[in-house]
Amino acid sequence: LGLQLHEDPAVLAHIESFFTARKRPMPAGVRVQALVPEGALVLHNAHGTAPGLVIEVRRNGGKTLLVLLPGPPRELRPMFTQQVLPLIQRAFPLDAPFVCRTLRTTGLGESLVEEKIAGPLKPLIESGLELAFCGRPGEVDLRLLARGAAASQLVSDAESIVRSLLGERIFGTEEDDLERVVVRLLTERRQTLALAESCTGGLIANRITNVPGASAIFLGGIVCYSNDAKEKFLGVRAQTLAEHGAVSEATAREMAEGARLRTGAYYALSVTGIAGPTGGSEARPVGTVFVGLSMPHSTSARRYMNPYDRETFKWVTSQQALDWLRRELGA
Amino acid sequence: LGLQLHEDPAVLAHIESFFTARKRPMPAGVRVQALVPEGALVLHNAHGTAPGLVIEVRRNGGKTLLVLLPGPPRELRPMFTQQVLPLIQRAFPLDAPFVCRTLRTTGLGESLVEEKIAGPLKPLIESGLELAFCGRPGEVDLRLLARGAAASQLVSDAESIVRSLLGERIFGTEEDDLERVVVRLLTERRQTLALAESCTGGLIANRITNVPGASAIFLGGIVCYSNDAKEKFLGVRAQTLAEHGAVSEATAREMAEGARLRTGAYYALSVTGIAGPTGGSEARPVGTVFVGLSMPHSTSARRYMNPYDRETFKWVTSQQALDWLRRELGA
Repeated sequence: LGLQLHEDPAVLAHIESFFTARKRPMPAGVRVQALVPEGALVLHNAHGTAPGLVIEVRRNGGKTLLVLLPGPPRELRPMFTQQVLPLIQRAFPLDAPFVCRTLRTTGLGESLVEEKIAGPLKPLIESGLELAFCGRPGEVDLRLLARGAAASQLVSDAESIVRSLLGERIFGTEEDDLERVVVRLLTERRQTLALAESCTGGLIANRITNVPGASAIFLGGIVCYSNDAKEKFLGVRAQTLAEHGAVSEATAREMAEGARLRTGAYYALSVTGIAGPTGGSEARPVGTVFVGLSMPHSTSARRYMNPYDRETFKWVTSQQALDWLRRELGA
Repeated sequence: LGLQLHEDPAVLAHIESFFTARKRPMPAGVRVQALVPEGALVLHNAHGTAPGLVIEVRRNGGKTLLVLLPGPPRELRPMFTQQVLPLIQRAFPLDAPFVCRTLRTTGLGESLVEEKIAGPLKPLIESGLELAFCGRPGEVDLRLLARGAAASQLVSDAESIVRSLLGERIFGTEEDDLERVVVRLLTERRQTLALAESCTGGLIANRITNVPGASAIFLGGIVCYSNDAKEKFLGVRAQTLAEHGAVSEATAREMAEGARLRTGAYYALSVTGIAGPTGGSEARPVGTVFVGLSMPHSTSARRYMNPYDRETFKWVTSQQALDWLRRELGA
């Protein structure tokens, strides 16, 4: 572009404060990140040092926005969403605006979700509704999209139909996730949660504590891989473990109840299962899981079968546990 | 391509067994996934129902491989690595094979890693060594690449230089991660681990239990968000919490020691800090963390400053804790 570079004092100050806040020396090579081409718009990098840059180029009557972003995903993603997208929308307004609605479901596979709703939505699809699915382990997103003057009406009619067909399989919309929904519901009800995790190994606690404000509702979790830990920290009886096994309905119930009583939480979830690749038997093959839910006056357990690789097994199990609690909370 | 489709009985049997294993009915619409174009090579999908398909097209003396993969990342990634890549390598052998080596580091920022090694590697770079960095929060990968006859020698010379400069900052190569290295070292030494996590909220336990075989070395973890849980499950003294605060060196030490003594583990790691966005003070701003490490005859704690968003804060802290243990294990 033949543009001169100059050192931007605000960018340099930001880079210096980044290292100061971390009590680390600023490497000399980093200073080059403060160089900005003349006329460029500087985008503040809230998560790193290199700024974003936007340069408007006009050639032959056309307008081009050159957008330069830092490389790390955690730096460029928020910068794109919060700063670049509004610039693009302003620079290039859409001729035909569209309406888009994402409904998030759990508990049904992608094919089954499609089977349940494709028929009833057919008239709307013929009127221009676009329907897309995104299936991941333990959840299926459903996107309803329409363009033009009737877009809002089409999408809202479609949402009503889908909600009546899928009911409480829908746990949220747009960016919701199960942990966020559960933390929100518990916060509203001023109730608390404890966890007792064997095969999920802390994943559920990790998900819950990713939500800002979780400390108001989350009292604690026990990751009890060993029988010894199940007895010592949760009070599971040695007799239960000997008679029913660590992966059993009875153990799941005692784990949940123990976690609830020992932390004083209103609800406790427990998980015990066989993640694999080893440890399975004929009666309890790899993938077998028991989830327990304890609350005052009631403790129960459910059996699931999740024959996936280790990390997917943990993820799907955490979805089932969080979803059970969500439904109990009446969402 | 004008190819006829036929139903492949092996693919259909695989799809049926997928649903049988999950004790779920097979939706009618799924059956179409067993349709295969004539002459196509079928790639088995170990993680889902839709198979991959490879069709070789010969036109005008050239050869094209059409590769069709299922959409979900967890299905297509292993299929690509294990099945498609070898096919491509066989169909299109490289003229100039290359040698590539990835060294994984933690504890230094990307700029600092570059600053330390760029000078000493200059002669090798002038001889054709390619050097690339990939920085993520809490780790920086360094990739050494060379082509041609001298490639192996160049890369191995470069690795020696980098290892002498970065020393134990290098925790592994290629696909290693810290949790895998820690589980491997503990397994070799037949030693065990317990965890006491406050602000990381189960993330470290989750990472450790992602490693197959972790159950041999991991005895248990306590996720103790509340002071009450720190006292009850770990034996942290009320006086310590009152005098020093929950986020303090003294509390980190008592948490680690409590986790070690109560589980009988050889090592215990503890973490207590302020993830934010709220809860900071002048003396302990958001991002302050204390990590504790307890082993027989020795318990200590270190202070770190990680002023990131909540999830990155948790991740970087888990890196610091695992890395401390890794260095203690003498890797």
